[in-house]
Amino acid sequence: MELDVIALRRDLHAHPEVGFTEFRTAAKVVEILLSLGYEVQYGEETMDGPSRRGLPSEEALEEAYQRALRDGANPDIVSKMRGGYTAVIGVKKGQAPGPTVGFRFDMDALPIRESADADHAPQAKGFRSVYEGSMHACAHDGHTAVGLGLAAKLADGSFHGTVKLIFQPAEEGVRGAYAIVQKGCLDDVDYLFCHHQGTDVPTGEFHGGGQGFLASTKLAARFYGVSSHAGASPEKGRNALLGAATALMNIHALPRFSTGSTRVNVGVLEGGTAANIVPEFARMVIETRSVSEETNNDLEQRVRRIIAHSAEMHELRYEIDVIGAAIPIRCDEELVQLAMEEARQVEGFHTVKASVESAMGSEDASFMIRRVQEKGGKGTYMIIGSHLPAPHHHPKFDIEEEILPRGVELLSRIARRVLT
Amino acid sequence: MELDVIALRRDLHAHPEVGFTEFRTAAKVVEILLSLGYEVQYGEETMDGPSRRGLPSEEALEEAYQRALRDGANPDIVSKMRGGYTAVIGVKKGQAPGPTVGFRFDMDALPIRESADADHAPQAKGFRSVYEGSMHACAHDGHTAVGLGLAAKLADGSFHGTVKLIFQPAEEGVRGAYAIVQKGCLDDVDYLFCHHQGTDVPTGEFHGGGQGFLASTKLAARFYGVSSHAGASPEKGRNALLGAATALMNIHALPRFSTGSTRVNVGVLEGGTAANIVPEFARMVIETRSVSEETNNDLEQRVRRIIAHSAEMHELRYEIDVIGAAIPIRCDEELVQLAMEEARQVEGFHTVKASVESAMGSEDASFMIRRVQEKGGKGTYMIIGSHLPAPHHHPKFDIEEEILPRGVELLSRIARRVLT
Amino acid sequence: MELDVIALRRDLHAHPEVGFTEFRTAAKVVEILLSLGYEVQYGEETMDGPSRRGLPSEEALEEAYQRALRDGANPDIVSKMRGGYTAVIGVKKGQAPGPTVGFRFDMDALPIRESADADHAPQAKGFRSVYEGSMHACAHDGHTAVGLGLAAKLADGSFHGTVKLIFQPAEEGVRGAYAIVQKGCLDDVDYLFCHHQGTDVPTGEFHGGGQGFLASTKLAARFYGVSSHAGASPEKGRNALLGAATALMNIHALPRFSTGSTRVNVGVLEGGTAANIVPEFARMVIETRSVSEETNNDLEQRVRRIIAHSAEMHELRYEIDVIGAAIPIRCDEELVQLAMEEARQVEGFHTVKASVESAMGSEDASFMIRRVQEKGGKGTYMIIGSHLPAPHHHPKFDIEEEILPRGVELLSRIARRVLT
Amino acid sequence: MELDVIALRRDLHAHPEVGFTEFRTAAKVVEILLSLGYEVQYGEETMDGPSRRGLPSEEALEEAYQRALRDGANPDIVSKMRGGYTAVIGVKKGQAPGPTVGFRFDMDALPIRESADADHAPQAKGFRSVYEGSMHACAHDGHTAVGLGLAAKLADGSFHGTVKLIFQPAEEGVRGAYAIVQKGCLDDVDYLFCHHQGTDVPTGEFHGGGQGFLASTKLAARFYGVSSHAGASPEKGRNALLGAATALMNIHALPRFSTGSTRVNVGVLEGGTAANIVPEFARMVIETRSVSEETNNDLEQRVRRIIAHSAEMHELRYEIDVIGAAIPIRCDEELVQLAMEEARQVEGFHTVKASVESAMGSEDASFMIRRVQEKGGKGTYMIIGSHLPAPHHHPKFDIEEEILPRGVELLSRIARRVLT
Repeated sequence: MELDVIALRRDLHAHPEVGFTEFRTAAKVVEILLSLGYEVQYGEETMDGPSRRGLPSEEALEEAYQRALRDGANPDIVSKMRGGYTAVIGVKKGQAPGPTVGFRFDMDALPIRESADADHAPQAKGFRSVYEGSMHACAHDGHTAVGLGLAAKLADGSFHGTVKLIFQPAEEGVRGAYAIVQKGCLDDVDYLFCHHQGTDVPTGEFHGGGQGFLASTKLAARFYGVSSHAGASPEKGRNALLGAATALMNIHALPRFSTGSTRVNVGVLEGGTAANIVPEFARMVIETRSVSEETNNDLEQRVRRIIAHSAEMHELRYEIDVIGAAIPIRCDEELVQLAMEEARQVEGFHTVKASVESAMGSEDASFMIRRVQEKGGKGTYMIIGSHLPAPHHHPKFDIEEEILPRGVELLSRIARRVLT
Repeated sequence: MELDVIALRRDLHAHPEVGFTEFRTAAKVVEILLSLGYEVQYGEETMDGPSRRGLPSEEALEEAYQRALRDGANPDIVSKMRGGYTAVIGVKKGQAPGPTVGFRFDMDALPIRESADADHAPQAKGFRSVYEGSMHACAHDGHTAVGLGLAAKLADGSFHGTVKLIFQPAEEGVRGAYAIVQKGCLDDVDYLFCHHQGTDVPTGEFHGGGQGFLASTKLAARFYGVSSHAGASPEKGRNALLGAATALMNIHALPRFSTGSTRVNVGVLEGGTAANIVPEFARMVIETRSVSEETNNDLEQRVRRIIAHSAEMHELRYEIDVIGAAIPIRCDEELVQLAMEEARQVEGFHTVKASVESAMGSEDASFMIRRVQEKGGKGTYMIIGSHLPAPHHHPKFDIEEEILPRGVELLSRIARRVLT
Repeated sequence: MELDVIALRRDLHAHPEVGFTEFRTAAKVVEILLSLGYEVQYGEETMDGPSRRGLPSEEALEEAYQRALRDGANPDIVSKMRGGYTAVIGVKKGQAPGPTVGFRFDMDALPIRESADADHAPQAKGFRSVYEGSMHACAHDGHTAVGLGLAAKLADGSFHGTVKLIFQPAEEGVRGAYAIVQKGCLDDVDYLFCHHQGTDVPTGEFHGGGQGFLASTKLAARFYGVSSHAGASPEKGRNALLGAATALMNIHALPRFSTGSTRVNVGVLEGGTAANIVPEFARMVIETRSVSEETNNDLEQRVRRIIAHSAEMHELRYEIDVIGAAIPIRCDEELVQLAMEEARQVEGFHTVKASVESAMGSEDASFMIRRVQEKGGKGTYMIIGSHLPAPHHHPKFDIEEEILPRGVELLSRIARRVLT
Repeated sequence: MELDVIALRRDLHAHPEVGFTEFRTAAKVVEILLSLGYEVQYGEETMDGPSRRGLPSEEALEEAYQRALRDGANPDIVSKMRGGYTAVIGVKKGQAPGPTVGFRFDMDALPIRESADADHAPQAKGFRSVYEGSMHACAHDGHTAVGLGLAAKLADGSFHGTVKLIFQPAEEGVRGAYAIVQKGCLDDVDYLFCHHQGTDVPTGEFHGGGQGFLASTKLAARFYGVSSHAGASPEKGRNALLGAATALMNIHALPRFSTGSTRVNVGVLEGGTAANIVPEFARMVIETRSVSEETNNDLEQRVRRIIAHSAEMHELRYEIDVIGAAIPIRCDEELVQLAMEEARQVEGFHTVKASVESAMGSEDASFMIRRVQEKGGKGTYMIIGSHLPAPHHHPKFDIEEEILPRGVELLSRIARRVLT
């Protein structure tokens, strides 16, 4: 059985939904998986609610939910996802017992306004985003389409063991995978294959194991002080911006580590309301990264300490939330080799590599791979190259659609190789 | 001729418009003045465009303009005010030559959501704000109503000299008076009377000359850097928030002055977009104050120096705008005495004082008084007391309406005393 | 009986001893008081050891002690002062019972190198400091000489009541008075007269009650971190200078107060040893002031809070010591008038005033006056004017010696007036 | 001919002289080289005065000079070194023409108080430092002894070409080599061999080419403001410590670089004199490092920019000096191999390696190697292992003396190998 993955990708591309609001996308995934005879889990079955990081506001979740309903999402299905439970897992048992092989596909889009220039293919071909201000600029539309194409390929169940297809929300900001892991959904997976399309790897090239993913933590901090009139009684105020600016300076001044490269960034700082009011509130978004998980943990603790004492120095109350996190990925050599061997059998892959150090990014599939490995299984993170007219997260980002059926073919071969 | 100033005030109260968007209010002022036979100037005749400080965005101006049209503002009149030219000046020449006496009335409201509690009189009596989120919480509705009441009283022109009634936008934030002064509208005024209602002075009390107004400058600063990915290439960024936080710390660290009390506040700081992006933009709102104009100027120059070098330290471009300013007020003793003498003749004023030191506030009528004095004229700033159920700028602020006809009576007596 | 106060002042001027090291000076005071028949207390009798603020190092104390011995200090006397107990109190009981009147004289010099220019009188007349690097540049030599001159005048005991002459160490830095107060030495004083010579008041002018003394606290803070090699393992360090610089910025950023003028200064910051070592130690000296004692206390608490959290933010240990303190002075009107009346009787005082607001300085005689007032007594702080060729604390500071016998005459009249 | 290098090292060890004050050491080197028949250059012949970085004060230089005279330095020789010209170069021409081979030996000690514990060999054996507070804690005594031992070995001139032995001052702080290079003394060297003893490499191990040396710059910055009385006129001050603390915070907040590991440290900050004086002066010592010379240059420029604008923000004058610098070392493979081959021939070296990444240190021999390479020659930096009872720069640092004759033997073999 075959799906038109290109048509599917275009439909997803035209309806991009940001993290935890993938209601229309996820409902469509459920429908297709059901139609293919998969056992499907979704809603609270697939996610531990409190472990969802950086959840949007209730208003934003509800607005996106209503939009999905308006745009044809199946009400019976999508109502189970209301409030941001948008992970979907499809399970297909084979003809005979055997191992469980998992594949991870992320579904979310970005808050970017897509280019409407004539030289931008989605515009020229008529599938530019109809959700103004949101855009699939990181290939997750392609990932999801490939996942569904794979589902179709494996729908006959002619293998030994079990296939588990995991459609994840909110990979951007490294927020969604952790809740699926915490729900236990990876605990029975023996082999896990994750992949990304693009990433500066050219069309026709394949990497069996991605490297260079950093441990990272994203924190949101809020400072609560006391406002006062800056002219009449400045001493009665407790200045939230002074605390936040002190934290900002000291967070940037954290030491370099001899234990591994690090990064730290205060990406957002906002506070105060008017020239003549001592600011009573400020909020801050911070990111730490390191090649070493221990070092990243150390950095995070130091950031927390700085925030706490910057706040207390100015008699402010404060709150800190983890709004995203990732850990490094260690790919299992056995799977890397297996994937490379299969890729060499797929027409269109002219270059096959074990792995090349990639840029200093982060991926929360790292939590899934770690859980599988902790339970005795194996995992890898693969790259399917694609020429890109513009970088990831750019308004003119696009993928070469020829890689989609090729990706389906490759993943299908990998699944059948493992499940024999 | 008499106007129902209480009814008028209630209508204004129900339709509060913030600084430079007083389209409905100003159009109504024009209509009434015209109906009373005044020569009326408004639109660009009354304001020097570039001297308007802290102008709202074009979108906000246009939105308020359209609302005024919807709510019945005379299109022929209000179209001349489009874009924020909302000052109105009514001139009435008397029967014989004589001096020119000016009165200033400010018209703007505040961005405060008015209380809907049953014990709040405007709610109970049905004239609570219909513009949700805006409120007359500083008595400018009363000021404007008194100004129109005065216009009616003097409409017969039975005096020697000229009356000039100046209805000013955007007193909040000390933004609007300067543009009227710069247009030259105060240059021919021999005597200028400004007043405020309330200000912690009880009902029945009158002050002939307010004291304690501070020199103040409000600045908006913008820092422009370069964004970059905080993981992949942090060194390519030029961090606008680091520059802004450095400025914030150093602005607050400006020295105390032995030349007079000072105040400095960074009321707003905002910058950055996401955890993983080096922030390319930040903006800041700053206020300086001093009892001494020279000291305030010195403080302003130091703030500008700090912003400039905080920006250049981080290779940022920056811009600084004055979005509000005031200077101290020196009331002319002759007018203070004259006003006190007349107040003693008005029923309802049981206590009449020269002046009492008030709180550390600022007023941009100061620029008007200064200009009159520079041209050889005289000015004063008077207080008409009113019991207040809640302080100025509070959601339950209200005035005693009995003070409105009393104010009209007093100003009318003052005008006729000067113009005999 | 008369002393040559000018010769005495010159001897003291030539041997300036800084705070808590006035061994030679104090031993001489003891000898003269004993010779005049006074009952004399000194050493630990006169000072509460732990209440001495900003005590020099043991080495510095011992070095000055040995110098005093070499320069002829009476070993039997000075040995009781070893370690910095340099206050001296002389008591003379009169012929009949009566009140106790106290006079305070401060004895310490400054760490300033005295001018050796020919136009500097002490140089020209041969009594320039022989202790290179120390100098009487604040008239305390004159104060002490006047105190001994007064002792001689009152030595016959021909009065009713008791005279108590208090010679205080370490007024500079407002450090020494508090220990004398804490020892209880002021508890029996009914009337206390303190004075200063000079202070921008011209020769021949007298003020019965000085004003404008500020509450002030001087703090020493020390930050203890962990050093590490800045190249090999920066993350192992705990950077004392980062903590101290954070404290410095935030201390300067403390708000202005509407409750009274304030001052805050970080006068010293020192830390670190080498370019390639993460600094493990830093120290800081801070000063707060206010016209209001409550406001100064509030400022001091805020400084302490900033230091604590700046340290803990960087995992530093810290210590804070009070090294000086003063409170405002409230002069009792009765004594002010009494002193003015007597001054008008003394030849050479051509101008007599109640008090004139003086500069923003501090005086620890404030603690003595406060204690007397708390016990039901009265006090004042007087100014005896003197033309000055250069300001206080300047290498060419000097006083007009004619004011010394005039001062003795005035204080003697005051004492006898009270003790009749 | 043989020298007792162990006795020589002990004499040097007992008389440690810090950077640019190696008067006794250098005079002894001159005397021995002359006695061996070398042509010797020293004093201003060997160093470009203004290129000496981080020169001590004139007082410190003169004090050390006088000490060297007292301790037997030859006055005729040492007088040419007065003021800090302490480099010595010995040249020996062989019997026939050939290439020029250079060896670099550094001579300076550290400002560390040497341990007097019985278990510290120099104490036990009677050659602990007699210059209290200075110590050979980095093996430069061993380097110099080996250099002189090598001079003796090659004194007969039985080789083709020229030997150039360079004894360098002030390697600590990477300050002395640059002045020798700028004088042109390396311009005629075809092969340059530098080495270090110890560095965590065990006794018997040899590395032909050291790695991991970082580009580094050490800067001294001085901030000049205006002092004022912190109580009476704080606004008249220009606060040098506020500028310096702002610089400190922002220097530490410099971004991480994706172009290579970096380090930045503010090692010293000192300013201010008293609690009640606005500080008019502050000084700061800063260090930058990177594996990449370009990145280090970028960092240095950013530090300079921060200092400049931190100063100008507070109306301070500032000065910046380079007080030390180093660049990365690239060892020429040909020399690495040659050295390894020879080491394998020397008894006692049981392990011979090309190179092992060492810690994040810096070496100013890097400038010498760079100059030789720029002129077409080759260079390497070798490690001669030694067990160390305590780390470099520790009060109990010591080397195994058996490595000294072994080092002489190796360098001698290398010289003769090149000069055949």
